Amino acid sequence: MNILFVMYDQLRFDYLSCAGHPHLHTPNFDRVAARGVRFTNTYVQSPICGASRMSFYTGRYVSSHGAQWNGFPLRVGEITLGDHLRELGMECWLLGKTHMKADAKGMARLGLAPDTEIGARQADCGFDAWARDDGLWGQGPDGFYDAKRSPYNEYLKGKGYDGENPWADYANAGVENGEMATGWIFMNADKPANIREEDSETPWLTSETIRFLDQAKGPWCAHVSFIKPHWPYIVPAPYHDMYGTGDILPVVRDTAELEDPHPVLAAYHETKVADAFQRDEVREKVIPAYMGLIRQCDDQLGRLLDHLEATGQMDDTMIVLTSDHGDYLGDHWLGEKDFFHEAAVKIPLIICDPRAEADSTRGTTCDALVEAIDLAATFVEAAGGAVPDHILEGRSLMPWLRGERPAWRDFVISEYDYSVTPRCKALGVSPRDARIFMVFDGRWKLIHFEGGFRPMLFDLETDPDEFADLGDDPAHAERIDRLYDHLATWGRRLAQRVTMSDADIERARGASLRKGIMPFLVDGSEVPPELTEAYRGPARQVHAPARDDEH
Amino acid sequence: MNILFVMYDQLRFDYLSCAGHPHLHTPNFDRVAARGVRFTNTYVQSPICGASRMSFYTGRYVSSHGAQWNGFPLRVGEITLGDHLRELGMECWLLGKTHMKADAKGMARLGLAPDTEIGARQADCGFDAWARDDGLWGQGPDGFYDAKRSPYNEYLKGKGYDGENPWADYANAGVENGEMATGWIFMNADKPANIREEDSETPWLTSETIRFLDQAKGPWCAHVSFIKPHWPYIVPAPYHDMYGTGDILPVVRDTAELEDPHPVLAAYHETKVADAFQRDEVREKVIPAYMGLIRQCDDQLGRLLDHLEATGQMDDTMIVLTSDHGDYLGDHWLGEKDFFHEAAVKIPLIICDPRAEADSTRGTTCDALVEAIDLAATFVEAAGGAVPDHILEGRSLMPWLRGERPAWRDFVISEYDYSVTPRCKALGVSPRDARIFMVFDGRWKLIHFEGGFRPMLFDLETDPDEFADLGDDPAHAERIDRLYDHLATWGRRLAQRVTMSDADIERARGASLRKGIMPFLVDGSEVPPELTEAYRGPARQVHAPARDDEH
Repeated sequence: MNILFVMYDQLRFDYLSCAGHPHLHTPNFDRVAARGVRFTNTYVQSPICGASRMSFYTGRYVSSHGAQWNGFPLRVGEITLGDHLRELGMECWLLGKTHMKADAKGMARLGLAPDTEIGARQADCGFDAWARDDGLWGQGPDGFYDAKRSPYNEYLKGKGYDGENPWADYANAGVENGEMATGWIFMNADKPANIREEDSETPWLTSETIRFLDQAKGPWCAHVSFIKPHWPYIVPAPYHDMYGTGDILPVVRDTAELEDPHPVLAAYHETKVADAFQRDEVREKVIPAYMGLIRQCDDQLGRLLDHLEATGQMDDTMIVLTSDHGDYLGDHWLGEKDFFHEAAVKIPLIICDPRAEADSTRGTTCDALVEAIDLAATFVEAAGGAVPDHILEGRSLMPWLRGERPAWRDFVISEYDYSVTPRCKALGVSPRDARIFMVFDGRWKLIHFEGGFRPMLFDLETDPDEFADLGDDPAHAERIDRLYDHLATWGRRLAQRVTMSDADIERARGASLRKGIMPFLVDGSEVPPELTEAYRGPARQVHAPARDDEH
Repeated sequence: MNILFVMYDQLRFDYLSCAGHPHLHTPNFDRVAARGVRFTNTYVQSPICGASRMSFYTGRYVSSHGAQWNGFPLRVGEITLGDHLRELGMECWLLGKTHMKADAKGMARLGLAPDTEIGARQADCGFDAWARDDGLWGQGPDGFYDAKRSPYNEYLKGKGYDGENPWADYANAGVENGEMATGWIFMNADKPANIREEDSETPWLTSETIRFLDQAKGPWCAHVSFIKPHWPYIVPAPYHDMYGTGDILPVVRDTAELEDPHPVLAAYHETKVADAFQRDEVREKVIPAYMGLIRQCDDQLGRLLDHLEATGQMDDTMIVLTSDHGDYLGDHWLGEKDFFHEAAVKIPLIICDPRAEADSTRGTTCDALVEAIDLAATFVEAAGGAVPDHILEGRSLMPWLRGERPAWRDFVISEYDYSVTPRCKALGVSPRDARIFMVFDGRWKLIHFEGGFRPMLFDLETDPDEFADLGDDPAHAERIDRLYDHLATWGRRLAQRVTMSDADIERARGASLRKGIMPFLVDGSEVPPELTEAYRGPARQVHAPARDDEH
């Protein structure tokens, strides 16, 4: 079996028709959901691209892999999904975005050059890169945000789009009065991107994927990782005007949220992106474009599914559709992601396992508490391996796909490190205290802040919209304590004993005894009979060299 | 300045005359203490050789470096003291024991061969090995406990000691009726080891150290790491009968400890080594030998100090004397180490900084709560560096050496993983739950057990001998909660963000803006004036390729 591990970037859990969106029709997501299981309570390990993705790709919590924010290098030697799968004889390919930054200093310390196979895997997050394109080709006075080469920009240039950065000038810009109207500006979001639709990012990566599929031998895992519907919010025709203001869901926000908010949340309210999404004119421009981008993703997914069917690969390919985090889109007076309301921290997850053992669950949903790190474990099991749970911190979802009811976790954890953001400075918090932890048990969501702030608490049963922060309500003190107990248990987890599995440990028991380490002998009679002779040796004369003082 | 970082193995904190031992005279330890500072509350990160040492050598907690027990490989790429010091231009040499096991699988994954400089450092815990000898040359039916070469055994063979393993047959055995009487047997501990004193382990490593010193250029850090007074408890003449039963301290144990003990402690009581040390005849054989071994260490330390003085190196060498853990020696009905009473978890630590800035503290003691991980940070500062506190979890002791009163930690943490021991199986605990954590705040010592056991609690102010376990006393529930809060805080520590320092983070703030990442623009007017032109570019015509549908 092969694994097609498809990730969209910044795709909200509820912007799919199979997830209940009333106006956004996504027949191809729905088509996979109808053949598989849709996991309705899936949470990312961090609501920010880089940290979240490093958790997907290592199967480990953010505090375990340490790449806590975008551009924080994943340290050399961290074991990745690719390492696990290759050990099982499955190739692991990358097409698109990882947002992984190589640990150049660590690689230099270990003498690893990025132009070797080993070095390239270290630099590409454990994948073999079919086409790595992180999809954010911002360019400013200090140069490109991303110093790597962009296969997509190269493709565009090959197609005749001019300039140094056609990603910015065409794929992510419209035209107004004959001049470039950049997609960075929200008020341009309703313009069609100035690019042939088939040359835009999502079709380009879909074509790359088809090219990959047509030559792949397998077994393979292909991480097909689209940058969209991530900003810049702009989409080519015909998607740019497929949705209108009437298709926008009512904004999920309440003036109570602005009254005496938690100080860290208050700092979020004051960001420029929050300010922008608090304006109706921004939401009315951006959300239809966001929906258009998703609809384009869906159409391209259909193209991919059709190709799999046409080439007979559908029956031996596990298909996984997910996202690295959501998008506030103005909900809770916020834009972007970066915090822990459902809009940001909850993601879509659909898994279709083509094998007969999953037949009983096709078209169903599963409301177990799932974490992003569960995918790596799932893929290891799907590839025929035993999950190395001394390294992978997630749990295989295969039992759910088979319709079993496994004993399962009681809570999920998500983390956010805002040390590099202006909020850290504005709040007067030290970089190491600029960390937030979410514990969610399926009903209660506790948000803990380092740095001496009180926690936040939401009851998603009585307050599914998360308007009422109960974190300073003495009536909930005991509940808060219980959630803190979960966090403390998690804090003591066995995360770094990555060189010894439980089986290694069980094998090691008693091994030193048979290698002559016997630090407990009173008179020698305690040596097990089978070891006595080997241990004591023949009762031979010793021949010590003459002592100097005997001369 | 150079650093002579001397470690003894299994040396109790209170078996030095400067620490108050009434019968064991250690004039050379005292000589260093008189020139430096003796830290009287120093705790190891784990009361077991390998895990403790990996904390010394990485400056990180056991749960951070993951090498939780002897023989658990230190994962490839973990940053060591040697890495930090070399970056500051200081060499970092090993003479003697580390008990480090290389991560062979990890090295293979990264293509690192142990015969290259980089590979050798990975395999030798970050040191350059002058003479690596881990000092435990046990041999049984499954071969040697330690598969590496033994420079010490080679030395003995060169000196004419016969057989495959003269370490066992001579250095660690006496003679009885003309036959070998092994030091593994406690009842042989009063015999003189059948070896010339100058050929025994401690003088051998001292000679190696002098040979190192005579050629070293510096600046260097030399980790001189003696295996003694670790078992096998046997010592050559004249040390074998230097102490008698009258010199033995009264055993620190109380029958109350055996009444309804904590179940995990009860399992310790039933180990063979505990059973042995519960017998007076064992203590009366072993402790005088243990004292003789320490006295030999002291004499050899004197030899080393004399050599430093004679060669004029005393004034530019920081001298550090410590141990990797203690030894119960029958206290608390236990033998060995492996648990958290003071006899096991507290260590001697004496630091003599020759520089004038430390003149005000010479001959003093410091009762701050010190952790073994503080040494790596201390050495980095001593070598002129800033402590990389995103990697090193300890704190430099230099302020204390200068007589300052720095703000300091409120508690120390120590950990023990008993998964590989028979106690894990006997208690029916899974390997990953076979973990114990100690939190000590200077007065109260909480011992937390994974796996559902109640905690233990000692009050070292009213009960310095740690006889009364208050862990199930409801009167202390609040205090226990407070200590658990410490443990939870520690559990959330920032341990793995090793690729980004706080300074890196502060530098990164706002950097993406100047590289064209601007996801917050409503109409473009928000771009800072200094970036507007660079960002927006000239208001040029775009030249998009003709769309297909225009043909």
